[in-house]
Amino acid sequence: MNQETKIPYKIYLTEEEMPKAWYNLRADMKVKPAPLLNPGTGKPLTAEELSPIFCEELVKQELDNDTKFIEIPTEIRDFYKMFRPSPLVRAYCLEEKLNTPAKIYYKFEGNNTSGSHKLNSAIAQAYYAKKQGLKGVTTETGAGQWGTALSMACAYLGLDCKVYMVKVSYEQKPFRREVMRTYGASVVPSPSETTEVGRKILAEHPGTTGSLGCAISEAVEVATKNPGYRYVLGSVLNQVLLHQSVIGLETKIAMDKYGIKPDIIIGCAGGGSNLGGLIGPFMGEKLRGEADYRIIAVEPASCPSFTRGTFAYDFCDTGMICPLAKMYTLGSSFIPSANHAGGLRFHGMSSTLSQLYHDGYMEATSVEQTEVFKAAEFFARTEGILPAPESSHAICQALKEAEKCKETGEEKTIVFGLTGTGYFDLVAYQKYNDGEMTDYIPTDEEIAQSIAKLPHVE
Amino acid sequence: MNQETKIPYKIYLTEEEMPKAWYNLRADMKVKPAPLLNPGTGKPLTAEELSPIFCEELVKQELDNDTKFIEIPTEIRDFYKMFRPSPLVRAYCLEEKLNTPAKIYYKFEGNNTSGSHKLNSAIAQAYYAKKQGLKGVTTETGAGQWGTALSMACAYLGLDCKVYMVKVSYEQKPFRREVMRTYGASVVPSPSETTEVGRKILAEHPGTTGSLGCAISEAVEVATKNPGYRYVLGSVLNQVLLHQSVIGLETKIAMDKYGIKPDIIIGCAGGGSNLGGLIGPFMGEKLRGEADYRIIAVEPASCPSFTRGTFAYDFCDTGMICPLAKMYTLGSSFIPSANHAGGLRFHGMSSTLSQLYHDGYMEATSVEQTEVFKAAEFFARTEGILPAPESSHAICQALKEAEKCKETGEEKTIVFGLTGTGYFDLVAYQKYNDGEMTDYIPTDEEIAQSIAKLPHVE
Repeated sequence: MNQETKIPYKIYLTEEEMPKAWYNLRADMKVKPAPLLNPGTGKPLTAEELSPIFCEELVKQELDNDTKFIEIPTEIRDFYKMFRPSPLVRAYCLEEKLNTPAKIYYKFEGNNTSGSHKLNSAIAQAYYAKKQGLKGVTTETGAGQWGTALSMACAYLGLDCKVYMVKVSYEQKPFRREVMRTYGASVVPSPSETTEVGRKILAEHPGTTGSLGCAISEAVEVATKNPGYRYVLGSVLNQVLLHQSVIGLETKIAMDKYGIKPDIIIGCAGGGSNLGGLIGPFMGEKLRGEADYRIIAVEPASCPSFTRGTFAYDFCDTGMICPLAKMYTLGSSFIPSANHAGGLRFHGMSSTLSQLYHDGYMEATSVEQTEVFKAAEFFARTEGILPAPESSHAICQALKEAEKCKETGEEKTIVFGLTGTGYFDLVAYQKYNDGEMTDYIPTDEEIAQSIAKLPHVE
Repeated sequence: MNQETKIPYKIYLTEEEMPKAWYNLRADMKVKPAPLLNPGTGKPLTAEELSPIFCEELVKQELDNDTKFIEIPTEIRDFYKMFRPSPLVRAYCLEEKLNTPAKIYYKFEGNNTSGSHKLNSAIAQAYYAKKQGLKGVTTETGAGQWGTALSMACAYLGLDCKVYMVKVSYEQKPFRREVMRTYGASVVPSPSETTEVGRKILAEHPGTTGSLGCAISEAVEVATKNPGYRYVLGSVLNQVLLHQSVIGLETKIAMDKYGIKPDIIIGCAGGGSNLGGLIGPFMGEKLRGEADYRIIAVEPASCPSFTRGTFAYDFCDTGMICPLAKMYTLGSSFIPSANHAGGLRFHGMSSTLSQLYHDGYMEATSVEQTEVFKAAEFFARTEGILPAPESSHAICQALKEAEKCKETGEEKTIVFGLTGTGYFDLVAYQKYNDGEMTDYIPTDEEIAQSIAKLPHVE
């Protein structure tokens, strides 16, 4: 272990050093992300059309491609101080164990009860809803990180929170459900009898265990039918990437403070909330021609939207009631195989990140599930933290890059996003520990089938 | 919220400011804690008698009543840097919500995968075992925090780790078990067929779900029968309080840095590991007559060793194979009622803390389970962190003291120990959320019955 170094194991910014504004990556993009379309008219969605679903300030943020910095309201900054700054960790133990000349850092977002970075956007979305005088918000949750984060934010602000939780998760992840209930949220297994769309699905498919698409449809219905409610979403949207930019901003401030310049930046990619947040300010420098970085998105081989999807307009939900977004997609009818553990199971990708990938500003790669858990176990034993399966995709790629440095002797600086902890993913860890975890790579035919169902957009 | 204050939400020491030596509270005690006795001879245990069970350096620390500061080896300090310094949090949100003039702080030890302060001593005990050239260590675990912490420390050092886990917990807390397995520990449900004592108990009580006392007996048997193994324990012992002093030392350094002087220091009390660690350096000042503090131990009304036990020599385990310790005890045959959730279920108390309590240096109080979970829920919603049931005993008392300040108008400074998170205690939270949690206070008769069975020591 390097005792002489000036760089601590964990770099914590002071509260004064924390970002006071979010960074809007779109402002630095020459080619802007394509607008959301109204699935009925095929025309770009206006603020008026969006405001029955999202609260006003968030609609503004969603549509704003020009303002580079948007001030973080004091109330949100105060809430951030309860769990931020998050540490930028120098992975000395990992470097020593790998015997690599690479310098490895990770930005750890898991030190809060939601267990992930989701809280960064949850508090922002809840705050604007409260400010607008709303009674509450609705959302869907699958694995439960987003639902937990939103419940925490709503409890803090005294806002009602209705979470539609995919029925199979509601039953198999009772602990996530209980965390949300402890924070006062009402958690409903989806599909449910509480909505029109839920009753319809239950009539057509009695005994269904639900899907994220169905839960979204129920949450949107409740938000639009109940005065004083709006719908909120934890990933994919531009507003979410904006709020999550706090991850990348803190990372950059911490690195600048110690004169560290990353060569490679690695993030796991599902809908893009963490990836977009982490890489944001670095990508901005790259777009402005001020610096160059290798930026790598890592996705599961079982749900490979960047690496095997197509760049086209598609529905954001399987229920096909949400707006159309132009993105890398496997088709909204694509569902990852049943053996897929953890999150990163969205069929599409943030429009902003899709455009940047399309324009060659970042790379993407995919990794298989068993190698991800092998990396997770190695990381847990070496760095102490039991990582979330999602985060472990980034770990897996970081280890590969560090191994390459060992071969070439290059002292590259690698930073990756450790989005969260795996404390609520132990069913998956148990499978891995018991040697029962399997991999699945969808065939070309499967992907072609769901892509063939993409909506026709002129 | 007070925007003008100079005290941040979270005070993090720099790595240079972290303690370089543990503080040995016994050195400042005029009346030393009574020595451990050999249950066979009734004589104080010698280093020779203790060394087949504990490794040599730990025996030294256990018996050392004189050395005030014991250097923390560099390797342990490096490991500490992976999860320490832990934050001293100013509970601004709690103060605002309570509308109290009190200033509330808590030292949060839950930001590591073991989820509690147990890791502070686990790494120390594993390190000395490794240094002595041992192959591995054995231990017991009930709820699983200690077993998890030890597994993490052993994985880091490449030491074998055998954990005997009370069978009912092994089956009802599969997630804790899987965390330990991910860290490479072998986890055996106790009683088991792997030991003589286990086989004996299984023959006598087929179908038993185990007890902590039985798991201790199995772990000690394996340690003493296998060359290269020693037994380690997560609480009660002097050595554990020594290692845990890092909590109080960091707290004191952080408070001194900002010129904060606590009036009241509150810790939950089971075997005393957190309480002794947190209050150590403050108690030292009090013993030396340099300062005065109100120090309050908070225990469950269902297991009230300080408040309703007797100060006498007793076995540390229900199996009656461990040394005799002089302590406040309910009798080693006392078992908390089945509705008791979480830890703090030990029948006795650290000898050091027992002596200090006996000599009037600290207060003790007990709280009931439903009020504890009510406090936990309030805390989670206000401060964001979902607390462990154990820690919530301290929260409960801190809220009471803050309410008193509101009544009297006194601006007292309260600091309490938030020992860990409740992520693996959601069965208990679910009971509370469902309104099914109950209280139980043992009758005087019950306590008298188990106290009547105390061993006779001259």
